[in-house]
Amino acid sequence: MNAVVSNILAQGTAEDYLICSPDNVRYVTGFSGHDSQVLVTARGAQLFTDSRYAEQAKKDVGPDVAVQVTTREERYPAIRDALYADRPVLLGIEEDYITVADFGRLKNELGVHSFVDISEMLLELRSVKTQQEIDLIATACRATEEVLEAVLPHIGTGVSEFDIRARLYYEMSIRGMDSAFEPIVAGGPNSAIPHATTTSYKLQEGDMLTLDFGCRFQGYCSDITRTFAIGRVDAKLKTIYDIVEQAQKRALDTAEIGISAAKVDSAARRFIQKKGYAENFGHATGHGVGLQIHELPLISAASKAVIAEGNVFTIEPGIYVEGLGGVRIEDTCVAGIGSLYTFPKDLIVL
Amino acid sequence: MNAVVSNILAQGTAEDYLICSPDNVRYVTGFSGHDSQVLVTARGAQLFTDSRYAEQAKKDVGPDVAVQVTTREERYPAIRDALYADRPVLLGIEEDYITVADFGRLKNELGVHSFVDISEMLLELRSVKTQQEIDLIATACRATEEVLEAVLPHIGTGVSEFDIRARLYYEMSIRGMDSAFEPIVAGGPNSAIPHATTTSYKLQEGDMLTLDFGCRFQGYCSDITRTFAIGRVDAKLKTIYDIVEQAQKRALDTAEIGISAAKVDSAARRFIQKKGYAENFGHATGHGVGLQIHELPLISAASKAVIAEGNVFTIEPGIYVEGLGGVRIEDTCVAGIGSLYTFPKDLIVL
Repeated sequence: MNAVVSNILAQGTAEDYLICSPDNVRYVTGFSGHDSQVLVTARGAQLFTDSRYAEQAKKDVGPDVAVQVTTREERYPAIRDALYADRPVLLGIEEDYITVADFGRLKNELGVHSFVDISEMLLELRSVKTQQEIDLIATACRATEEVLEAVLPHIGTGVSEFDIRARLYYEMSIRGMDSAFEPIVAGGPNSAIPHATTTSYKLQEGDMLTLDFGCRFQGYCSDITRTFAIGRVDAKLKTIYDIVEQAQKRALDTAEIGISAAKVDSAARRFIQKKGYAENFGHATGHGVGLQIHELPLISAASKAVIAEGNVFTIEPGIYVEGLGGVRIEDTCVAGIGSLYTFPKDLIVL
Repeated sequence: MNAVVSNILAQGTAEDYLICSPDNVRYVTGFSGHDSQVLVTARGAQLFTDSRYAEQAKKDVGPDVAVQVTTREERYPAIRDALYADRPVLLGIEEDYITVADFGRLKNELGVHSFVDISEMLLELRSVKTQQEIDLIATACRATEEVLEAVLPHIGTGVSEFDIRARLYYEMSIRGMDSAFEPIVAGGPNSAIPHATTTSYKLQEGDMLTLDFGCRFQGYCSDITRTFAIGRVDAKLKTIYDIVEQAQKRALDTAEIGISAAKVDSAARRFIQKKGYAENFGHATGHGVGLQIHELPLISAASKAVIAEGNVFTIEPGIYVEGLGGVRIEDTCVAGIGSLYTFPKDLIVL
């Protein structure tokens, strides 16, 4: 029985656990395919997949996970036969993932009538990474820095956001990396929008340019944001840059094991507030990173989390001024270790 | 009231309709953002979104759709107030999209107890495209051909699958296109796997190379597959190529308005069967294409669909021989018009 399976059983949330989301299937078994489920019972974990993935399951899954290859039609009967507890069983399911339609089929075909949501429990478990998981994220982070370095020489006035996004995709892909999420490439006025979508806008002298992207390696994500100046920029933008840089440093320095996430958020937020930009920093200071780009712990004013060993999270304050531009600086960090990046923070002029 | 809203109301599946999936929200209103819902009642369509998307909603949505900007907390109360029918109302929801967790919240907060699934009804409506939708798909198809032409000169022995995927992403992105799905770049032995994942495999003399990808433009997808020879390939692979090319032509010629999808599938399948490769063509002949890369009609032996005016679908037979290689040729077609591509079908040697 692998450590994740033991941890799940130790929670005692349910009797048996049926895990259907690809990220959690991967978390429990290492299996990287789709359309597959894991049943966790006192006997251990059993992966149900189809013939397309039979080879991949052999490659991905350790000897402590039983694999059963079935057709789509045989799937639920096979899972029903593998349930451990005497019926009526309390079955844990991911209510944040499973659709109403799938839930109806599952209920009918398994003959189970008692369910409990395990979404949050799995997110909590996943927020504490093993060394192996941290190593995968660190590999994704190194590739992310390489991509950024490779793309910078091609950025300047006249280059469009689409061009830059194209180069990001290219440099990620030649390294065998997937894109962890749709990159944000926000130049000039668009840099004032925290979640800007990429456009054909061409960079001009005096613009800020925010690049927010990350690689995904063997399922694990990285996340980075750097903001650059295109030529000579307004003095106010330089001031904003310095404030964000210092706010980020304060949050990074605060994010020690045992410190509340709200306090980390407040380290950045209060500094930005003091400088008069409270209204221009409308998002959380950070979020956990792992198999998903947004997971626990949330680093926000309302967060109840406390930074724990094994947490991996971003620190990413920003200031956004409509009509002028914006700045965000983001690192991916490991609790007790700090940022996984060495890429400089001081303003780079392109 | 726009035509889509009228069509939905004319179905009479429910009294009011709450549409939550981004693709269907876009289908009904033109709105391209996320985290938003559309309520369709006898009064018309009303879009509920948050302040992040207020500007985008103004840009995307016509005068026939009312827009209400609310916080996350005010959302369900606002929708509850906008329900048309006297309660108890029969509310249509997308059971294939909405999660068990979201459904629980929705049920509590709307005070509605009668629901009916509208997933299939919406898919059926979406399978009949307007001229405007076909034009968007055609634009995506033209870009897809341009991308293919731009990438080909860079392909040859020693080039890896990752390199080729990187160039596909690059060429799509500089044209302002999104990738409609994760491209398939399958060289040599990997070309024998219909849904191969991209690897670091480097092309060798004698390989087949299958490229299956597409652009997405303003939400609408295109889909193309071409298979190439790297240098001199085995005579058997050339034979297989000719069989797939002819099978695809037969299916294309059969796919007229009024013909059953099963007959279109059979036109390709029977030819491949006659040539002795029945066991090597394990997937459907095609699928509808639109806001999603896989939608109705399904072009398979079991399909009950009949090709109708406004249908857009792929025709993509293939033959896969483990240890040797595979061939697939795919076009995106409009019912009554044919393929949207002009890219040649005869075997190209790179």
